[in-house]
Amino acid sequence: MSVISKKCSLLLVLCLLPVPVQAETESAHDTAVQLREAGMGSGLAWEIVEGLTTEVGPRLAGTEADHRAVEWAKRKLEALSFDKVWLERIEFPVWTRRHEAARIEAPYPQELHVTALGYSGSTDGEITAEVIGFADLDAFRNAPLEQVEGRFVFINQYTERTRTGAGYGDSVKVRYDSGLLAKEKGALGVLIRSIGTDSHRFPHTGVSTMANDPLPAVALSAPDADQLARIMSRGDSIRISLDIRVGFREAGHSWNVIAQLNGRETPEKLVLIGAHLDSWDLGTGAVDDGAGVAITAAAAHLIGELPQRPGSSIRLVLFGNEEAGLWGAKQYVDAHAENLENHIYASESDFGAGPVWRFDTDNPVLMEAAMPVLEVLGIEKGEAARSGGPDIVPLQERGVRIFRLRQDGTDYFDYHHTADDTLDKIDPEQLKQNVAAWAVVTWLAAELDNSSQGTSD
Amino acid sequence: MSVISKKCSLLLVLCLLPVPVQAETESAHDTAVQLREAGMGSGLAWEIVEGLTTEVGPRLAGTEADHRAVEWAKRKLEALSFDKVWLERIEFPVWTRRHEAARIEAPYPQELHVTALGYSGSTDGEITAEVIGFADLDAFRNAPLEQVEGRFVFINQYTERTRTGAGYGDSVKVRYDSGLLAKEKGALGVLIRSIGTDSHRFPHTGVSTMANDPLPAVALSAPDADQLARIMSRGDSIRISLDIRVGFREAGHSWNVIAQLNGRETPEKLVLIGAHLDSWDLGTGAVDDGAGVAITAAAAHLIGELPQRPGSSIRLVLFGNEEAGLWGAKQYVDAHAENLENHIYASESDFGAGPVWRFDTDNPVLMEAAMPVLEVLGIEKGEAARSGGPDIVPLQERGVRIFRLRQDGTDYFDYHHTADDTLDKIDPEQLKQNVAAWAVVTWLAAELDNSSQGTSD
Repeated sequence: MSVISKKCSLLLVLCLLPVPVQAETESAHDTAVQLREAGMGSGLAWEIVEGLTTEVGPRLAGTEADHRAVEWAKRKLEALSFDKVWLERIEFPVWTRRHEAARIEAPYPQELHVTALGYSGSTDGEITAEVIGFADLDAFRNAPLEQVEGRFVFINQYTERTRTGAGYGDSVKVRYDSGLLAKEKGALGVLIRSIGTDSHRFPHTGVSTMANDPLPAVALSAPDADQLARIMSRGDSIRISLDIRVGFREAGHSWNVIAQLNGRETPEKLVLIGAHLDSWDLGTGAVDDGAGVAITAAAAHLIGELPQRPGSSIRLVLFGNEEAGLWGAKQYVDAHAENLENHIYASESDFGAGPVWRFDTDNPVLMEAAMPVLEVLGIEKGEAARSGGPDIVPLQERGVRIFRLRQDGTDYFDYHHTADDTLDKIDPEQLKQNVAAWAVVTWLAAELDNSSQGTSD
Repeated sequence: MSVISKKCSLLLVLCLLPVPVQAETESAHDTAVQLREAGMGSGLAWEIVEGLTTEVGPRLAGTEADHRAVEWAKRKLEALSFDKVWLERIEFPVWTRRHEAARIEAPYPQELHVTALGYSGSTDGEITAEVIGFADLDAFRNAPLEQVEGRFVFINQYTERTRTGAGYGDSVKVRYDSGLLAKEKGALGVLIRSIGTDSHRFPHTGVSTMANDPLPAVALSAPDADQLARIMSRGDSIRISLDIRVGFREAGHSWNVIAQLNGRETPEKLVLIGAHLDSWDLGTGAVDDGAGVAITAAAAHLIGELPQRPGSSIRLVLFGNEEAGLWGAKQYVDAHAENLENHIYASESDFGAGPVWRFDTDNPVLMEAAMPVLEVLGIEKGEAARSGGPDIVPLQERGVRIFRLRQDGTDYFDYHHTADDTLDKIDPEQLKQNVAAWAVVTWLAAELDNSSQGTSD
């Protein structure tokens, strides 16, 4: 039933198009199927993510390891089917961690597993103080100053496990806002329950908000947050010591690594796809975002292996320093400000290696061309995309059209921003499904839009 | 079918017994059912393991935390239904870790997650050397000296996931033997794949063999072992630096914590059940062995709540310093050498908090009395027990009879000896099933054996 109705929709779209477009679309369909099958049969994405996470490993933006990652990626892309590979330099401050330790001193002495949030302040030696707990950010927001002043604050807000990442969208506010709020209220530092969905002894890092003279701000692993909450529920006063040594070490730099397939008809027009090359320092950045690098690079390469280029260009951007605040994405938009109207679409893969389950676009022509090819991959027809991925936000804000291949993120926040983000968390078969979907949609976007641009809105 | 045949077997056993025994057995059956239901309805074991892991946390034998654990346990047992609670002092050397770090220096610089094995040596500052890898202990055993001399050795032997723990039984030899063997062959140190079944970034500690001037010996987490193996498979020479500061800090002591229900007929005879109170330093010792402490203490307490004591005594022993080599168990046997023939049975719960799936005993009377009560808990009839648990080995070697309630250990070696051994890994419902089974079998063992001792072999 579903197959028949999809085929009917496609036929209907084809009938509504002018005749030359219809012929192009039929040929596009065949090529898209060919790309899908190539994607499902390709080990390239695995090879890329295996190589990047093994031969580079953790690659905090601006560090020596990040610079090795840039070299690695440039060399890898040059060996693939792109017409051109180049670097665009980006600059930013580099925040790093040197030492982090936390301990319950009373009533029940024991170590706590913590990691500093990006842009956290240091403790300047060890600080010991009483801690006051809150169930969530709102409860903390409503707390009177005198409860908080001179104390550590513990915020035990949970992150809901969801396929879409909506749970993270809610709870990540704690990471962004609690440090600033705690400073306003006169606290000595902040401990938050990790913004994550696992129950393992891994604290999850991630940026907080950059500020002058920030408070020390750390995440506790979920079992440590549970432990602190249990002790708190006994009603005793709790004293914690924190020793956090972190900070800005120098003005840093990195590069956006860019590769392009030049379009055969309108090479100045381009479909931008990408991922971010940097990772947090704790894990090897496999699901965040080695997977996205691998998926989009492999998809673009497969398109580059076709006998002819698509009508428009395809540009692969491996953004630098996404993690500490979209530095590469912002600088891409500045550097290409005068050419943004030539970006037909932009989309990023930055949600792990789970399978794609839905395709979102506001373009009915692209949707109707893609869905008959995507549905055998288990992908549903979606709606207009609300986001194209974090590095796409600055482009979207300047009016660039987006699409999105939505992945199942049920497990993503188990590993996200932890030491446990390693290669073994990626299923090679799911990676192939992603490559297949990205190859299909990227190719159709670069091929069809040249002719259907006028009918797409 | 199964229920009927079990009932028939029980009837058969009852018919074969002399009449007074038969009456006792019928009443024993009713009491056992009552204990089972009490166990399934009791939150006491959860309360104990929650309290111990929260209010004490990690409790490496001989440390201040361990002494707090002893105080905690004594106080807790005194508040339960025991007739007597006492401590027996034990002495042993205390090995502790102070600092541990490992790093791949070349060809792909990155940190490795490691933890020192118990009784490991220190590196005396940082050592950097080439590493040579072996698939397993046998391959290493067969390696010529010149391959090993002056290098670090990496042994990548896997631990098979099994319900029974047989996989661990195989692979743990690597932990015991690799350091001594590496020293014989002139290596600088040993890195082993963790003896565990998870794929998280937690190295598993555990004792190696105590030796004079031991080599530094560490476990890598599974993802780190995979990483090292992948780099090795590329054929490049690999250089690693190790900085391990560990060692014996002082002559230490602790206590076996003992509680007893005095038997109403032959109080000098006793059924010994127990667990170990100490834990490794990395986690809070929830599955190893807070669970066992909770299960056996709760089971004994429920028996103590009955209107009358069983015929023989029940002795609960919470052994000290199991982890570093059964120190408490050995000293118990020495201290009670002249009374061991009065130990009717001994058995320990030290295999996590998974459900009991089989009951092993060589006593047909105990088996036939217990099975009709246990089977609704999903417990199968087993055979003669081969082991009563690690702390029972010294008793078994001196001829004490053992039984065993075998738990499902499928997940146990995911957490065993890691920082991730925390309370959230325990399912309160499975804990209740354990308490029910232990209450039933312990009570029957102390009640029936007085009359059936003669017919039991």
